[in-house]
Amino acid sequence: MTAAEMLATYPTPIELDLTKLAAAIDALTACAQSCTACADACLGEEMVAMLTTCVRTNLDCADVCTATARVLSRRTGYDPEVTRGVLEACIVTCRACAAECEQHAKMHEHCRICAEACRACEKACGELLATL
Amino acid sequence: MTAAEMLATYPTPIELDLTKLAAAIDALTACAQSCTACADACLGEEMVAMLTTCVRTNLDCADVCTATARVLSRRTGYDPEVTRGVLEACIVTCRACAAECEQHAKMHEHCRICAEACRACEKACGELLATL
Amino acid sequence: MTAAEMLATYPTPIELDLTKLAAAIDALTACAQSCTACADACLGEEMVAMLTTCVRTNLDCADVCTATARVLSRRTGYDPEVTRGVLEACIVTCRACAAECEQHAKMHEHCRICAEACRACEKACGELLATL
Amino acid sequence: MTAAEMLATYPTPIELDLTKLAAAIDALTACAQSCTACADACLGEEMVAMLTTCVRTNLDCADVCTATARVLSRRTGYDPEVTRGVLEACIVTCRACAAECEQHAKMHEHCRICAEACRACEKACGELLATL
Repeated sequence: MTAAEMLATYPTPIELDLTKLAAAIDALTACAQSCTACADACLGEEMVAMLTTCVRTNLDCADVCTATARVLSRRTGYDPEVTRGVLEACIVTCRACAAECEQHAKMHEHCRICAEACRACEKACGELLATL
Repeated sequence: MTAAEMLATYPTPIELDLTKLAAAIDALTACAQSCTACADACLGEEMVAMLTTCVRTNLDCADVCTATARVLSRRTGYDPEVTRGVLEACIVTCRACAAECEQHAKMHEHCRICAEACRACEKACGELLATL
Repeated sequence: MTAAEMLATYPTPIELDLTKLAAAIDALTACAQSCTACADACLGEEMVAMLTTCVRTNLDCADVCTATARVLSRRTGYDPEVTRGVLEACIVTCRACAAECEQHAKMHEHCRICAEACRACEKACGELLATL
Repeated sequence: MTAAEMLATYPTPIELDLTKLAAAIDALTACAQSCTACADACLGEEMVAMLTTCVRTNLDCADVCTATARVLSRRTGYDPEVTRGVLEACIVTCRACAAECEQHAKMHEHCRICAEACRACEKACGELLATL
């Protein structure tokens, strides 16, 4: 199941590029899950005291990506300003989380995978934003 | 990106059946997205006044599935009672949403797909619950 | 602003005890905020390695309380089974979080306050559940 | 229970204006609850077909306010860019929801109260943003 399948059932035409919209929603959903799991895996490391900023950034990123995925999944009463605002906030948050996780990527596989999910999400949101 | 990839990076052994845990998280994530999109597609229908219970049930299901996916994604300080409680609540909620969406499935493709996502999620959560 | 003010504006009669419903929503909202803040305050402690279970339980409790507050705030298409299911899950989660925070309450003021918020929420949810 | 009580327990000094930070978190929490309830009250109106944009905007505002309240409640590893990004997105979203609800405020008391909560939240977030 991907976002594209549900977007195709919306009863009226959708203003946005459907391929980029579906890609952004899927990237956001995947990033939110990775960040939730990475925060928890950091908590499970013996050296958790070195990873507290990573936990926090992960939690922020999970929350912002979840909210952004929900806003983008709604097509009724479309408001380009709200869409632009949440995409911009989400890109900043994903970039911060990716940068933090990349610092631990060589030591912690969860940070390496999570950084990739954040970069993919930053890119997908940026490509959608460029079409608005 | 699926939940299994992140679960494999958790620093210590995981108490639960990993295959069923990953399947439940992925089903929950997919169900939450379908329900958010189905609630919005119902709002976009001319006959929205006939679909208000469906919108509400979809919103509940999206919220409960999102919370359950987050709880299951965390492995630190595992508490079987909390896991059991949220799985049971989620199964009841998915069942209610599936039953509601199934009533509109012949007329609205979004309800048909969403009902399937809810049934798949109910099943995946049930299979994980059976192993606790 | 409390939940009671919004509940009073719902266009048709509400099936539940309004006083207990409003008290539960307000307790859930307060508990979710306390748990989010307590998880973060634990991360900010030098002895964070001793508090990882507390962080995790706090995060679970924040997520489950947020979802439960949303479900209870919706009156359209009321489903007593879903309401009962989420209340039961929330009570279990609040109880677990309160028990964990109580262990650190003498040393950490954030755990002391958070434990109180969890116990208040457990109580308010239990009193609402008893009326269903 | 207000946000100020938990902020006062954070183990190290907080970079932001504590009074404005606590006011913003409390306004966000109240706004999220009002928006969830207003979306549902709109669904309960006979004329729901005239209120679908209001429902959608309410749901977006609830999601963005919930995420913003969580980000602001975290003080560990503070990142001013992320804070600024989510505050800006939240202000745009609150303003859009207030403007939509104000159109129905004379006819629907839930929209009138919700518009006030959105304007109060927009203001509290703006005052915090001005201090960054």
